[in-house]
Amino acid sequence: MSSDHHDFSPAERAGLYRAIFERRDVRSQFLPDPVPEDVLARLLQAAHHAPSVGFMQPWDFLLIESRDTRRAVKALFDGANDRAARHYAGERGERYRRLKLEGILDSPLNLCITCDRNRGGPHVLGRDSMFDTDLFSTCLAVQNLWLAARAEGLGVGWVSIVDPDALAGVLALPAGVYPLAYLCLGYVSEFLPEPELAAAGWRQRLPLTGLLRGDTWHTEAPEAVLQAVAGLSPQDASR
Amino acid sequence: MSSDHHDFSPAERAGLYRAIFERRDVRSQFLPDPVPEDVLARLLQAAHHAPSVGFMQPWDFLLIESRDTRRAVKALFDGANDRAARHYAGERGERYRRLKLEGILDSPLNLCITCDRNRGGPHVLGRDSMFDTDLFSTCLAVQNLWLAARAEGLGVGWVSIVDPDALAGVLALPAGVYPLAYLCLGYVSEFLPEPELAAAGWRQRLPLTGLLRGDTWHTEAPEAVLQAVAGLSPQDASR
Repeated sequence: MSSDHHDFSPAERAGLYRAIFERRDVRSQFLPDPVPEDVLARLLQAAHHAPSVGFMQPWDFLLIESRDTRRAVKALFDGANDRAARHYAGERGERYRRLKLEGILDSPLNLCITCDRNRGGPHVLGRDSMFDTDLFSTCLAVQNLWLAARAEGLGVGWVSIVDPDALAGVLALPAGVYPLAYLCLGYVSEFLPEPELAAAGWRQRLPLTGLLRGDTWHTEAPEAVLQAVAGLSPQDASR
Repeated sequence: MSSDHHDFSPAERAGLYRAIFERRDVRSQFLPDPVPEDVLARLLQAAHHAPSVGFMQPWDFLLIESRDTRRAVKALFDGANDRAARHYAGERGERYRRLKLEGILDSPLNLCITCDRNRGGPHVLGRDSMFDTDLFSTCLAVQNLWLAARAEGLGVGWVSIVDPDALAGVLALPAGVYPLAYLCLGYVSEFLPEPELAAAGWRQRLPLTGLLRGDTWHTEAPEAVLQAVAGLSPQDASR
């Protein structure tokens, strides 16, 4: 099918899947060791090779070391997190407040990946029908970086509990530049065997077979695919 | 830094980077060979292990084989693409019309990855300040699948030139389910050495050093990082 020189060796293929299955959203295990520049450069290059609508490449990368800046972002998080906690009552509220949801000051480096919504001019190829595909492209860059970080032994945590307008103010972003992903980055003491929210009893992984459909929403997925999915080895907590 | 059993072997790490750098948005190189169920199952499992806000896992996967359904989607593409082409005049317009931008009927399988905006209830952890993080999470699943496909020798093309409301109609999606990514999937005759839009002279890759900043938008990135990035080997057209 594919020609030989396009084939991955078993170890290469295993490396990709390992990064996918062992990647974690890290909040609590950061070590203070600095991130070497050559490693950081490889992560940024991985992000920059994400696909983007119309080859727009709408991303910029803010490398945030300043503790003053990070304290300002942490203050935004604290305010937003207090407001979010009010949605949960009783035992669920207690559990929410016990969760550690960011490593802004614990990690040696913060990284904001932004989306410049005006890059490439007013008519970006492929963006006419779905205007937010620039944001979607930037997400693909985030995932490339996240996986490369795992392969380099680095943890990444995405802090989404922060008002984007206020964050844009702290980072002095110009109009039209959206702070899509505020990430904490660093070496870690360990990668947890399963997602932290699952381990904490907050929410569990859904069975994949329940998420498969056929030609339309109301059509069943082909039985052979359902059987193949049901026969996969579980990946969480399996190593 | 990281403990030994968390380290990737050089071949594992190379496999991840290879998938990242050799992944392409495929439109023209699809082969008709069917995608084996066990391979498809691994791709879906890879997608399902993407991170998601509050462990929301908002995605569903529609496996679209029906040629009637695909012809209906192709008709939506044709209409949207005609409208988009009007944005470009003269030589640019000619060039636009020569680009092949989808493989809906050429590929053996179409796959729509949707985002259920109501999954997990009204207050999903981490989504309070950035409501669209459910869409962003679904993008991360798309990228996992795209990379896994490359490692399995399969090409993927994302068709964004289609009105999402009309597409939701064709696929009978219920209210609140957004057709985030309409993908064409299949084995390919080759993976091009560089992105098709670059090869076609539409738009080139931006220099990464120009996208790096420091603690704020107006602060320069650290010189040591800029130097490390400038010293990276180029990845396009290098294999």
